[in-house]
Amino acid sequence: MKAWLSKLNIDLSAAPSSPEELARTVLASVSPDFRCRIETVPALEESFRIRNDPDGSFTVSGGGTGVLYGAFALIRSVFSGKELPDSLESAPRYPLRMINCWDNMDGSVERGYSGSSLFFEAGAFHYDPLRMRELGCFMASVGLNVLCINNVNVHFPAQLLLEDYLPEAAALADLFRPFGVRLMFSVDFSQPMRHGIPTADPLDPAVQSWWNETAARVYRAIPDLAGFLVKADSEGRPGPFTYGRNHADGANMLARAVAPYGGKIVWRCFVYNCRQDWRDTKTDRPMAAWEHYSPLDGQFADNVILQVKHGPFDFQVREPLSPLLLGMKHTNLAMELQLAQEYTGHQIDIYTMIPMWKELFDELPEDHIMSVAAVSNLGRDDNYTGHPLAAVNFFTYGLLAWNPQTDAADAVTEWIRLTYHFAPEDERALASLLLSSRRTYEKYTAPLGIGWMVSPHDHYGPNPSGYEYDLWGTYHKANRDAVGIDRTASGTGYLLQYPEAYQHKYADPETCPDLYLLFYHRLPYSFRMKDGRTLIQRIYDDHFEGYEETKAMAEILRSLPFPEPDRNVILSRMDRQLYDAKEWCDIINTFFRRLSGADDTHGRTIYD
Amino acid sequence: MKAWLSKLNIDLSAAPSSPEELARTVLASVSPDFRCRIETVPALEESFRIRNDPDGSFTVSGGGTGVLYGAFALIRSVFSGKELPDSLESAPRYPLRMINCWDNMDGSVERGYSGSSLFFEAGAFHYDPLRMRELGCFMASVGLNVLCINNVNVHFPAQLLLEDYLPEAAALADLFRPFGVRLMFSVDFSQPMRHGIPTADPLDPAVQSWWNETAARVYRAIPDLAGFLVKADSEGRPGPFTYGRNHADGANMLARAVAPYGGKIVWRCFVYNCRQDWRDTKTDRPMAAWEHYSPLDGQFADNVILQVKHGPFDFQVREPLSPLLLGMKHTNLAMELQLAQEYTGHQIDIYTMIPMWKELFDELPEDHIMSVAAVSNLGRDDNYTGHPLAAVNFFTYGLLAWNPQTDAADAVTEWIRLTYHFAPEDERALASLLLSSRRTYEKYTAPLGIGWMVSPHDHYGPNPSGYEYDLWGTYHKANRDAVGIDRTASGTGYLLQYPEAYQHKYADPETCPDLYLLFYHRLPYSFRMKDGRTLIQRIYDDHFEGYEETKAMAEILRSLPFPEPDRNVILSRMDRQLYDAKEWCDIINTFFRRLSGADDTHGRTIYD
Repeated sequence: MKAWLSKLNIDLSAAPSSPEELARTVLASVSPDFRCRIETVPALEESFRIRNDPDGSFTVSGGGTGVLYGAFALIRSVFSGKELPDSLESAPRYPLRMINCWDNMDGSVERGYSGSSLFFEAGAFHYDPLRMRELGCFMASVGLNVLCINNVNVHFPAQLLLEDYLPEAAALADLFRPFGVRLMFSVDFSQPMRHGIPTADPLDPAVQSWWNETAARVYRAIPDLAGFLVKADSEGRPGPFTYGRNHADGANMLARAVAPYGGKIVWRCFVYNCRQDWRDTKTDRPMAAWEHYSPLDGQFADNVILQVKHGPFDFQVREPLSPLLLGMKHTNLAMELQLAQEYTGHQIDIYTMIPMWKELFDELPEDHIMSVAAVSNLGRDDNYTGHPLAAVNFFTYGLLAWNPQTDAADAVTEWIRLTYHFAPEDERALASLLLSSRRTYEKYTAPLGIGWMVSPHDHYGPNPSGYEYDLWGTYHKANRDAVGIDRTASGTGYLLQYPEAYQHKYADPETCPDLYLLFYHRLPYSFRMKDGRTLIQRIYDDHFEGYEETKAMAEILRSLPFPEPDRNVILSRMDRQLYDAKEWCDIINTFFRRLSGADDTHGRTIYD
Repeated sequence: MKAWLSKLNIDLSAAPSSPEELARTVLASVSPDFRCRIETVPALEESFRIRNDPDGSFTVSGGGTGVLYGAFALIRSVFSGKELPDSLESAPRYPLRMINCWDNMDGSVERGYSGSSLFFEAGAFHYDPLRMRELGCFMASVGLNVLCINNVNVHFPAQLLLEDYLPEAAALADLFRPFGVRLMFSVDFSQPMRHGIPTADPLDPAVQSWWNETAARVYRAIPDLAGFLVKADSEGRPGPFTYGRNHADGANMLARAVAPYGGKIVWRCFVYNCRQDWRDTKTDRPMAAWEHYSPLDGQFADNVILQVKHGPFDFQVREPLSPLLLGMKHTNLAMELQLAQEYTGHQIDIYTMIPMWKELFDELPEDHIMSVAAVSNLGRDDNYTGHPLAAVNFFTYGLLAWNPQTDAADAVTEWIRLTYHFAPEDERALASLLLSSRRTYEKYTAPLGIGWMVSPHDHYGPNPSGYEYDLWGTYHKANRDAVGIDRTASGTGYLLQYPEAYQHKYADPETCPDLYLLFYHRLPYSFRMKDGRTLIQRIYDDHFEGYEETKAMAEILRSLPFPEPDRNVILSRMDRQLYDAKEWCDIINTFFRRLSGADDTHGRTIYD
């Protein structure tokens, strides 16, 4: 096994017959004198108990998949040297813990930085069954239970997953079943039109019939399919708006089709005007999802889940929690995270996400969502995640999806211990580096919640005005006096989409948390921060610090005893991060100095 | 025939046997009662005389190709209704009047906006002989005599033009010969290394031998080949610098190889550091060519021609004449123009170049160059130039290459008369529109000689800071106070590369011609122009005027009786130009207003 299961020595050349059998295999692999019993208690379902008996043996009890999760929890403890209490009970916080792969059937992966698709090649299924079983183990080891295998942007021939390719899709579902993993498919809302139906209008009976028949056929082949994932009316995708219907009409139509089989419709809420005129200062893109969906609260079928990106923009390094996740109390919600480092360094820059996710979960009231999803960062690279250290994001995402109370430092430390054999001081150094890496990246990139200062299209590297006159609704409107967008009641009013306590926290620039300042406010460069620094000086300081911290990261990484081939990959990517952090630092500082005319109070070099 | 030869009714289904025969065919096609004799006087070579005899008949005398040029000059007069004097003598100003095609053998055309290659497809020759003969007529009709068929960036398999594909290249040379057109090939300086020679060092005897043998073989197949065109040590191309040699070493080595056959080496001078760090303010890209080549003046072989882009940058809408074209008095020089509208609107925007070229020739002392070249704007589109009105650039380039004294308005009017059947007022309206189109484009794009405010890579559409932090040495460094680069003695010193009178004209911002102001000077927005306006107001005014002029152009075009399919193409491209002119105007004005904070004194809308 690879990555954080490198210490797990099991034979995956044949398929396990069931989660229980896999649980037994996993536990039997530890050592000859490791004694552990398994008790299947169907009513426990995904939950498990681990009892540490006085004689030193263990008992893992749980439902069909619960024993598997228990087995992995136990061996993670053993391999990471973590003390277990005499008795441990654990149940997943969210019933659906999903991975969304943005894999295309041509073998490419949209926003993939780890090589080509694990599942597809040249328009057809093409995979290594052994790697599929490894992926099953990765998911089971951290309790993830749903795998959507194809891109939400459904490019032909991915429609055939519900048609000609269904037998092969069913074979893949069989392969993943013993790992407690159910498949999901992204579907094309207009798919009935491939079959002689002249419309995809969700209220058209012929459309409903087609989906009913399709669902029946698909569920005959894959009875435990988790459901369908839908990106509709978004960035050029077809959807209900074409027919003057709303998204409840669209989602509920699909929901009726899959309901008889226990299927879910996971409906993405990434709807906004991606052709916004830059001259239009009334339209504020972060407001779009709330405007589209909040009027529909309570109108969605029980088996519909609205999947909402964690922030109102698109996976920037710093965004507030989406207002939809705080409203929509009568709707099933999933929060969508992104393991793929689209805007966060392309798995070249080190960017450990769990501190960011913890902030999100801390702001999210109990029971407000019922599911989590994350865009995969996996691909056909030998190490699965391109950058070996990016695997920490997959691992900790699983732990947090199971239990959002999971401590960030504990999770990262566990991942290090499972992945490498480090002395305690090296372990601490790496944990500290990973835990601070997001803040470092944030410092050297776009300042204080602005986001988007990346190259358009590829989303890597600094381009302070790359989006400024473009169509994507992502403007900072920096001029010689001020920067940022006023999103309070005196500006676009975005902040009014939030509950009152939340509004109170961010409305006043004097009290708004610094790191969200330019997301919510337009401020002059001379604005005094809470610590007395001017805004412009804070921007400069963050950028210089971000680069200095990156240099320190590079030093630490060079000193750590990574095994090959990881060491080589890690250090060569670090060289690129270091180069790019310098570019970011200098370009952003120059950009703001050209506008503001302000010198750095510490006399550091800002280029003309 | 198409384009400006649409009134010429000749059968090109078979090849003419010689220029004289083609001349006869052309003249015979006019009308049954048109009487014209041809007298071949070999000593006249390319020159011709036309005598209009009292009996109404004509006599065209000239050398082998001279009679062809004379015949075309005569029928151009006939078709355009131009009065001919009783006797006309004409000789070309420059012996080599070249078209450089940037066609790749995969069928693409670098910076081509008229469809795919006329010559190549899928890695091999692939052409329509009829279209080749039309192209031959186009060239002959305006006196162009050299056609380089492949891209100066020699991508494999274009090396095979000198090898496996030589027989087909020779067949193409045969095809063009009756049109007075000689072929030329762009060659790869490192080509010997494809053949087991471990180096391409120009001083290595094995390299010299390989080129000698290759030239012998090539000239056996194509005895009148014009020569080789070379882009060396430029934008990633191999060259003499790799071996510590200078460009005289490189060019002279090749020159020795082709000299026995009368061949020329046309050596491009587009050498600069295309990996310049944006933080480096010492390096000034326009200075590079002079620095590389001026120390070598007098060291090049007689059959070497240095081909110098007309300006020191790269075909921007406004550049001063390259200092190399004013120095280098002991070297054969060709001035390179670009018909392909790389930075000038991609043959979407109307951009008639002859007013710009006239400015260049007016600054160029007599006899300072011995050749002209122009990058082709032709492709496989039915109308050859994508935009029907872009054909005026090919046509007028030919006239100017023959005689730089040609009047711009006369040339444009002649083209209109040859191309369309317009009433005199429509003819005047179109001529006026075309003649002012470059200035209009200049107004709505980057101001006053700055250039480069286009999208990197594709070079179309506004992006005011697209190059600002990139590697291409093309910076405006606009900040809240000032814009432009000081290239005088107090700045980078670029201006010192010019003769004294020239320096005197541009050195002082108070007297420097307005349109070159920001090329040579860095100036505050409050700088007073000669007419009393501030610099920033002048920038705003130009942009508003450019857009207004474009709207007026659109009105005029809609009113003109273009035949189909031209009308449809012209009007749909005009819609795009209009949209883009508005984008340019608004984006550039907003960009400078954000920096300067200055309002428009006329209260027109500049967006935030």
